[in-house]
Amino acid sequence: MQYLPPALEALVEHFNRLPGIGSKSAQRLAFHVLDLPPEEADAFAQAILTARRAITSCPVCQNLTEGDGPCSICSSPRRDASTVCVVADPRDVMAMERSGEYNGLYHVLHGVLSPMNHVGPDDLRISQLVSRVAQGGIQEIIMATNPDTEGETTAVYLSRLLRPFGVRVTRLAYGVPVGSHLEHADDATLARALEGRQEI
Amino acid sequence: MQYLPPALEALVEHFNRLPGIGSKSAQRLAFHVLDLPPEEADAFAQAILTARRAITSCPVCQNLTEGDGPCSICSSPRRDASTVCVVADPRDVMAMERSGEYNGLYHVLHGVLSPMNHVGPDDLRISQLVSRVAQGGIQEIIMATNPDTEGETTAVYLSRLLRPFGVRVTRLAYGVPVGSHLEHADDATLARALEGRQEI
Repeated sequence: MQYLPPALEALVEHFNRLPGIGSKSAQRLAFHVLDLPPEEADAFAQAILTARRAITSCPVCQNLTEGDGPCSICSSPRRDASTVCVVADPRDVMAMERSGEYNGLYHVLHGVLSPMNHVGPDDLRISQLVSRVAQGGIQEIIMATNPDTEGETTAVYLSRLLRPFGVRVTRLAYGVPVGSHLEHADDATLARALEGRQEI
Repeated sequence: MQYLPPALEALVEHFNRLPGIGSKSAQRLAFHVLDLPPEEADAFAQAILTARRAITSCPVCQNLTEGDGPCSICSSPRRDASTVCVVADPRDVMAMERSGEYNGLYHVLHGVLSPMNHVGPDDLRISQLVSRVAQGGIQEIIMATNPDTEGETTAVYLSRLLRPFGVRVTRLAYGVPVGSHLEHADDATLARALEGRQEI
């Protein structure tokens, strides 16, 4: 597109490479950046650089953190260190924290086992989890990978790996989502909800 | 959100301020940036800085360009300098160019008259358009502002302003969009299409 200045074209291109941003949106975003006050555009660019450089993995739970030491959750004296919730992604930690119901620690795998995508155990932070469990002090591991085939496979794989350490391995309950309509629930979910029914 | 590192939180915040990016998308984009190779993240940040600094207005048509001189369209010897198409936004230039049907020059207003949003003639690049016309050599001005109330008002305002210079002022034709279905056309469009009917 000869009629778009190269510097603008380059910016559109960068936005276009982001997930879920099509070429129309990329253009809209790039034009928006041109309209920003210069200091605002600088701050945006700086935020990208800082985030990319300052964010590391927590040496304990592998969740995203800043600095060298353990993250704020791992180093909090108010959290129950005997329970570890295993999730696939840092965003899942955020989801769990939002629920406000969990007070243990986490372990972030950074992915799930996926033979289709050539993701094996060595590509995930599994050895770090095994080390944590081997060190002792952990009584329960809650598998909170996504309720899909890959998440399920990963949870089963890990439970077999960890059970020899004498730790209790549990899985998040399946069932109908709160506030949803039964008529819209899929068969598999309904079957699981029935199976896991509880006394009231 | 105490459990999101500040540097990441800041980046999410910046993405969230972009138009059409909600908090979920902003999070997804920020996490994506963390996963980028460092040199890719650097290039993205640099693209923002460069675009914000290097992009200026063409002194002739006011469209976005780089450097001090006239833009590539204004300085092209192959374009018909006697026709100027007036658009509201640089993106409209791109749309016109994509059509491949237009070989004249442009004038970008950078907005439309909008009393509701306190946008008056002095907030647009109208004086620059008047100067261009006053310099002579322009035979036709094609109004290509959007076919809505504000675009229409702006076109009428400009046509009154420019007609004293003896220049021909035209407007893009209204009608049913090519490839559309008549049953989905709104009343106003159909009425205009009927009004502007032509011999075949």
